[in-house]
Amino acid sequence: MSSGKILVAQGGGPTAVINQSLVGVVLEARRFRDVRLVYGARHGVRGIVDEDFVDLTQETSHNLEQVANTPSSALGSTRDKPDLKYCQEIFKVLQAHEIEHFFYIGGNDSSDTVRIVSEQAIKAGYPLRAIHIPKTIDNDLVGSDHTPGFPSAARFVAQAFAGANLDNAALPGVYVGVVMGRHAGFLTAASALGKKFPDDGPHLIYLPERVFDIGQFLRDVKTMYERHGRCVIAVSEGIHDASGTPIVVQLAKAVEHDAHGNVQLSGNGALADLLCEEIKSKLKIKRVRGDTFGYLQRSFIGCVSDVDQREAREVGEKAVQFAMWGKSDGSVAIKRTGFYSVDYELLPLAAVAGKTRTMDDEFITAEGTDVTDAFRMYLRPLLGSRMPDAYRLRPAPVPKVLRTP
Amino acid sequence: MSSGKILVAQGGGPTAVINQSLVGVVLEARRFRDVRLVYGARHGVRGIVDEDFVDLTQETSHNLEQVANTPSSALGSTRDKPDLKYCQEIFKVLQAHEIEHFFYIGGNDSSDTVRIVSEQAIKAGYPLRAIHIPKTIDNDLVGSDHTPGFPSAARFVAQAFAGANLDNAALPGVYVGVVMGRHAGFLTAASALGKKFPDDGPHLIYLPERVFDIGQFLRDVKTMYERHGRCVIAVSEGIHDASGTPIVVQLAKAVEHDAHGNVQLSGNGALADLLCEEIKSKLKIKRVRGDTFGYLQRSFIGCVSDVDQREAREVGEKAVQFAMWGKSDGSVAIKRTGFYSVDYELLPLAAVAGKTRTMDDEFITAEGTDVTDAFRMYLRPLLGSRMPDAYRLRPAPVPKVLRTP
Repeated sequence: MSSGKILVAQGGGPTAVINQSLVGVVLEARRFRDVRLVYGARHGVRGIVDEDFVDLTQETSHNLEQVANTPSSALGSTRDKPDLKYCQEIFKVLQAHEIEHFFYIGGNDSSDTVRIVSEQAIKAGYPLRAIHIPKTIDNDLVGSDHTPGFPSAARFVAQAFAGANLDNAALPGVYVGVVMGRHAGFLTAASALGKKFPDDGPHLIYLPERVFDIGQFLRDVKTMYERHGRCVIAVSEGIHDASGTPIVVQLAKAVEHDAHGNVQLSGNGALADLLCEEIKSKLKIKRVRGDTFGYLQRSFIGCVSDVDQREAREVGEKAVQFAMWGKSDGSVAIKRTGFYSVDYELLPLAAVAGKTRTMDDEFITAEGTDVTDAFRMYLRPLLGSRMPDAYRLRPAPVPKVLRTP
Repeated sequence: MSSGKILVAQGGGPTAVINQSLVGVVLEARRFRDVRLVYGARHGVRGIVDEDFVDLTQETSHNLEQVANTPSSALGSTRDKPDLKYCQEIFKVLQAHEIEHFFYIGGNDSSDTVRIVSEQAIKAGYPLRAIHIPKTIDNDLVGSDHTPGFPSAARFVAQAFAGANLDNAALPGVYVGVVMGRHAGFLTAASALGKKFPDDGPHLIYLPERVFDIGQFLRDVKTMYERHGRCVIAVSEGIHDASGTPIVVQLAKAVEHDAHGNVQLSGNGALADLLCEEIKSKLKIKRVRGDTFGYLQRSFIGCVSDVDQREAREVGEKAVQFAMWGKSDGSVAIKRTGFYSVDYELLPLAAVAGKTRTMDDEFITAEGTDVTDAFRMYLRPLLGSRMPDAYRLRPAPVPKVLRTP
């Protein structure tokens, strides 16, 4: 007999649609007669250990819908990664509150948390159903066609490069835009979807899936600058040399590590500034500008894919259905079934947890500095409806009077 | 008797709506029976000297409307500032093409260009009607209630901070967002319009209108961090010490100058990184992140104020009307006539050219780190309709079972 209490939490970096999944869980759970109370833990697993719960059952449907449309994690998030001792604390709290269903919305670190909690529950003989609900702007979860949160961030990046290309065309020079993505280049590759005309930027795209060589980079930029009189470049923050050392590390004075042992690549403009300095000093190009998209690409309010919103809602709903009607813990995954439609399945936690997906070779051109049409076909439907579009004046040159050509 | 030829060009930094003004000129001009041909100069005054003209009369109304909705300067832009010799070249070309009406869309540098060209035309006895059409995201033109281009950039900044605040609330720490604006803090101040709840960020706003003191800055951040457990900060790229030296100069190895003698403050992340380092090292706060909004804030496609679009179109139309029905050169200015409505007037070029408007004292609080309600009332209607809005879960705490408070 179920206690009728479920718990939901959000972990890792926020996205534009992570609250859709939260609200999907809350509203779908209340349709089950076995569910009496829906608790939310504030700031992820940290809030479980601290018994920092809110009763989401007391929320109105109207406010939940408004929160669903609000970016970032409404319950708060955390970067904590539970070890055995941490998990024992979690169990103590779950038992004390008679919680038997745990939904954790997050990326691959969070799915690993769910896996550990699930294993500890089995060891402890505690009747817990633990479901991981996917989200990450990096799109790096294995087993899914794509991950909720990625399409909206990809849309931001595509719109940003569409605009940066227009700006660069008006005042020609070199523009470097640095995009998030530690190991997976999907978000950086999304810059290609901002391109409309054949000579539009980004003219070069550098992904963490390929080794970055500064000499080759400078030759590429020179070629494009000579061809177009300008050059727009998309660069992943995770680009690295042949030894795997991030390019930004060559410059950063102090390297900051987070609790997961990852190098801190975000939150500073070092990589963009380094690359711009290289271009200026080695290629003698005067107008060179760099932007680091930083937190804007995951937190900007008002740039969202409606497809992403719908799917993020559905993974939350399906998580509850899998938990209530199924017999196993797992991670909800998106399967593509048509152009464009999807279905959902529950993968074993061990198949997802802690693993990192990177871009398929078929998505990257042979030169390694552009994406293929296969990638464009993959990403286009995810960006959603009403993508802004750029138009040009058509050529109608006026004959010169003073100078003969 | 008029030659029936007019010329339009775009100068300075592109905006989200500068093409509305261009299209306003083209479509309105063709309604005058005296106008036979509308030429556009590519890349501003540089295109005049190079006789690089396109015949805009050959464009379709449909494509012009699409271009109007496309950000950045469709004709291309320039940073050139004509001197006497440059202007003599301009006259030669204008005379050779029998152009008698010149419309230049730009900021205070461009208005100064129009003033010089106008004066040179008078000296040379050439019958030129020269009109400056305002645009700048900095909102620093004197004589106008506000400047086309500013409202859309302000909307981007407000939306960016609304999102950054949500992100920072989910994963608490210190966030520094650096906003464009060399001398005028309007765009940085727009960050305040992203605030909804009383404890939302930005908690601190630093404007170039006030002297920046690093010691006071650190004390402010400490106070806010202790009060909210987090702190979101908006900083103008133009902040400077008591001697007027930009704070970023204290750090930049090489300072780049553009043709107007201005220090290059944009296009690198140095200021944000410097401030973050200061906070980390002096206040011992671990999670400190900085973003430089860079070119995104002026070029992002798909973030535009509909009020800004309409007004940018109207200044283009009015420029043609002032030129055709009026008797003097000048600069088109926006006057606020109601909450919210505007009218347009033609100011003498000397009243606008080369001058810089900064924020009124009544827009800045006594402490100098926030804006007043007067500023909120000033800016709110400019941001346009359908501003995205942030919602929160309402507090419904669950009593702790294991721990008594």
